[in-house]
Amino acid sequence: MNRTAFQGEKGAYSEKAALEFFDKGIELNPCQSFKEVFELVEQGTCSAGVVPIENSLTGSVHQNYDLLLKYNLTIAGEIYVRIVHCLMALKNIKLEGIKRIYSHPQALEQCQEFLEEAKDIETVPTYDTAGSAKILIEQNIKDGAAIASEQAAKDYGLQILKSGIESNHENYTRFLVLKKENPMPQKGGKTSIVFSFKDIPGALFKSLSVFALRDINLLKIESRPLHGSPWKYFFYLDFEGSLEETASRNAINHLKEITTFLKVLGSYPKAEF
Amino acid sequence: MNRTAFQGEKGAYSEKAALEFFDKGIELNPCQSFKEVFELVEQGTCSAGVVPIENSLTGSVHQNYDLLLKYNLTIAGEIYVRIVHCLMALKNIKLEGIKRIYSHPQALEQCQEFLEEAKDIETVPTYDTAGSAKILIEQNIKDGAAIASEQAAKDYGLQILKSGIESNHENYTRFLVLKKENPMPQKGGKTSIVFSFKDIPGALFKSLSVFALRDINLLKIESRPLHGSPWKYFFYLDFEGSLEETASRNAINHLKEITTFLKVLGSYPKAEF
Repeated sequence: MNRTAFQGEKGAYSEKAALEFFDKGIELNPCQSFKEVFELVEQGTCSAGVVPIENSLTGSVHQNYDLLLKYNLTIAGEIYVRIVHCLMALKNIKLEGIKRIYSHPQALEQCQEFLEEAKDIETVPTYDTAGSAKILIEQNIKDGAAIASEQAAKDYGLQILKSGIESNHENYTRFLVLKKENPMPQKGGKTSIVFSFKDIPGALFKSLSVFALRDINLLKIESRPLHGSPWKYFFYLDFEGSLEETASRNAINHLKEITTFLKVLGSYPKAEF
Repeated sequence: MNRTAFQGEKGAYSEKAALEFFDKGIELNPCQSFKEVFELVEQGTCSAGVVPIENSLTGSVHQNYDLLLKYNLTIAGEIYVRIVHCLMALKNIKLEGIKRIYSHPQALEQCQEFLEEAKDIETVPTYDTAGSAKILIEQNIKDGAAIASEQAAKDYGLQILKSGIESNHENYTRFLVLKKENPMPQKGGKTSIVFSFKDIPGALFKSLSVFALRDINLLKIESRPLHGSPWKYFFYLDFEGSLEETASRNAINHLKEITTFLKVLGSYPKAEF
């Protein structure tokens, strides 16, 4: 069984990420929410899940950071997908007749400049880009358009009114591939961890020093609130190297002297960007 | 003129923050968006603006971090507000008759546990908590409810069906007070800055070390994508002390040796929490 869960409808960017990562030999399982993706993999209904973790324009997908902490899955890999947003509508509809534009809030945000020019058009936030394309067909909406991928326009038989409407074309999303377990790479790759630390002076500086002292390169830092302890945080770090390597393991052991909580989210091969 | 801009309708949590900060002797200017708040202060139409920057459950309000970078305003102060969400509806409506719940996405997220129990009820994201209360009255919606503050229920003559429906009662929002210019405190207080750094090994570690080496306490770190340079970031730091103090100024000068960009967002008195 090689069933992969992703959030969204057929034609979603997460589907594209899954197909590129697994080279197409997989069965796909669309989900309503990110939480459902994590659940299906944890239960074993799906062997893998693919979720967006960060976009180069809008930043981190914080909900998935929180879910990585909550569920016991491992990050088995990552993949970058170039995001090209298209405005699409039913066949024979003209741009002038559009009164509403449907899409996921992140996609609406990424097309802000285009939307600011289209003054009298209302935006309607939805749960999914491809799902917005589906709504147009299902409800036969003649005065509406959707922002989604070219693939979604193909899947739902819509016409593309305008392509590449994102404000900045350096628009990429990094996706994580989640599994129940996965062997760590022997060498290289990267590791993701999450931790919180003791209330000591310079704790964040000391946490980062365990990597700097070993010439380990930090790739990303993200903080999320620690529920129940206002203005304290969980820190998420990505660093270069696998936990199969001595320097990485030493750094983690050193870090444990400072932390009150530490969880390894996975060591996995670095994707090309 | 002491006119203060905030995002939302009468009864919004931002209005409460403004009234508490300025001790009520102000004229209020509700705005549709955070961007409008920044614009009104920059233009001089309002002498101050109040925006949420972080919630203890849902984390940072990233849009306002991005706007702090874009506009040339200074942070003149901060205030913490305890958030108590209430479910409200038109008079004589019972909880059993509710089919839809309207609120801002952050408020819906903060009441996730309550909403998960209310299974057959649809959630409708809106631009504002208090604005959702207003919609019920204006459109005479009998099968809908709103999540907003107790003040909003009073302002719009709604009845409260249930109070304190947030998943976690340690629910606080930190608000910033923005002005065109403001004197820095002579001593104490805190300073907020944003910077990006050169592509050198251990750059983040080195950035934090300029504070650690001077025993300056870091209070918050946040990263946001640097548009046009995927996987590079702007870092936002809050640290203890005013830029009127020598140690803080030395740290900033030291930091400039590493950064390609640095902007001081303000030194201001620390609010009590």
